[in-house]
Amino acid sequence: MEAVLLLSGGLDSYTAGAMARREGYELYALTVRYGQVHHREVSAARDVARNLGVARHIELDVDLAAFGGSTLVGDGAIPKDRDLEKPGIPSTYVPARNTIFLSLALGWAEVLDARALVLGVNALDYSGYPDCRPEYLAAFERLASLATRAGVEGRSLEIKAPLLRLSKAEIIREGLALGLDYGLTHSCYDPDPSGAPCQRCDSCRLRARGFEQAGVADPALRHVGPRS
Amino acid sequence: MEAVLLLSGGLDSYTAGAMARREGYELYALTVRYGQVHHREVSAARDVARNLGVARHIELDVDLAAFGGSTLVGDGAIPKDRDLEKPGIPSTYVPARNTIFLSLALGWAEVLDARALVLGVNALDYSGYPDCRPEYLAAFERLASLATRAGVEGRSLEIKAPLLRLSKAEIIREGLALGLDYGLTHSCYDPDPSGAPCQRCDSCRLRARGFEQAGVADPALRHVGPRS
Repeated sequence: MEAVLLLSGGLDSYTAGAMARREGYELYALTVRYGQVHHREVSAARDVARNLGVARHIELDVDLAAFGGSTLVGDGAIPKDRDLEKPGIPSTYVPARNTIFLSLALGWAEVLDARALVLGVNALDYSGYPDCRPEYLAAFERLASLATRAGVEGRSLEIKAPLLRLSKAEIIREGLALGLDYGLTHSCYDPDPSGAPCQRCDSCRLRARGFEQAGVADPALRHVGPRS
Repeated sequence: MEAVLLLSGGLDSYTAGAMARREGYELYALTVRYGQVHHREVSAARDVARNLGVARHIELDVDLAAFGGSTLVGDGAIPKDRDLEKPGIPSTYVPARNTIFLSLALGWAEVLDARALVLGVNALDYSGYPDCRPEYLAAFERLASLATRAGVEGRSLEIKAPLLRLSKAEIIREGLALGLDYGLTHSCYDPDPSGAPCQRCDSCRLRARGFEQAGVADPALRHVGPRS
């Protein structure tokens, strides 16, 4: 039973992959180099894929920086120390990113005749992105059934987002119970040249809050000094 | 009023673009180099974009050959002299291609704050691809409204497929009435090294049937000999 896993190199997709593996899925991991300023996450994804024992890992280039429109592809500076509770969509939102990634995963899933797409989105401790909402995922699942040969022939493809309703702390506890090594992962949007996390972007701060609430230390910060 | 046009280099997307331009849209053309064996179409797309006077043309690399699963990306031989009325999905079908292309167009549309995505699919003289059906396009339009900042803020994005219910002959008549130069376009899935169409693949034969039914000669065949 094959599943295509969207793997970013962060802790969410790693955990989602491990949960799908526990259910018996054989994982095919897809990582997209989309022009993200934090391309450090792609090498983290490689380590995570190896740790998960995926059947195959494809790293695909899709240069979304050609469109611009997001600080995450170099269009402006990554925001720091932002109020995480502030409503609205932050500048790190990459237009249509999840739709693009899910579409690519759908293409590979169809070739593999896979039964599921797995992704690590969650609707609680997230950054206000529209394409992380449950109703969005339901609409994509419906689209997938119309878009593909499998759908036409009556086979269904499930969109699995096992973290959708978990807090970051719950995700971390789940992963630790599964024996995951979060020291392999990278979350920071704006790492320094050595790859060390900035500890001030939204992604670093949501991660830090998650580890704090879970009551454990973040193994990825073992070799990093305290926040300046 | 901006629109993103999916431009392949064939005659359908050229005609759809010209129809949108007539409605007053400023066109932003997106062409994807996806590993298609008929990459000749990409240089045709460049000529068509210039002829349409688009505001900008992006050629994006997305290597779908990494997934395989289609003769159109080199996985097996392009079928020739196939029964065009035979039911089922032919081997030239590229898994999830329209979903991937529409998703990419959606990303650019969001950055541009465009009001429409334009594509040249049609549900009559097509090749039996699931992602050319009206219900598929309606599902994508719904997805787009959930996926994006514009959708969240109540602005809608229209999926415009003006050829959806036209025959190939009707498309050609429409384009000729608009003064289009179909000599710029390329449809063949398996051109010879000089770029000349094979005249035996599905795409060549649907095109030939269209020109025949429209009662005009295909200007792209001016310098090509008769079918062997």
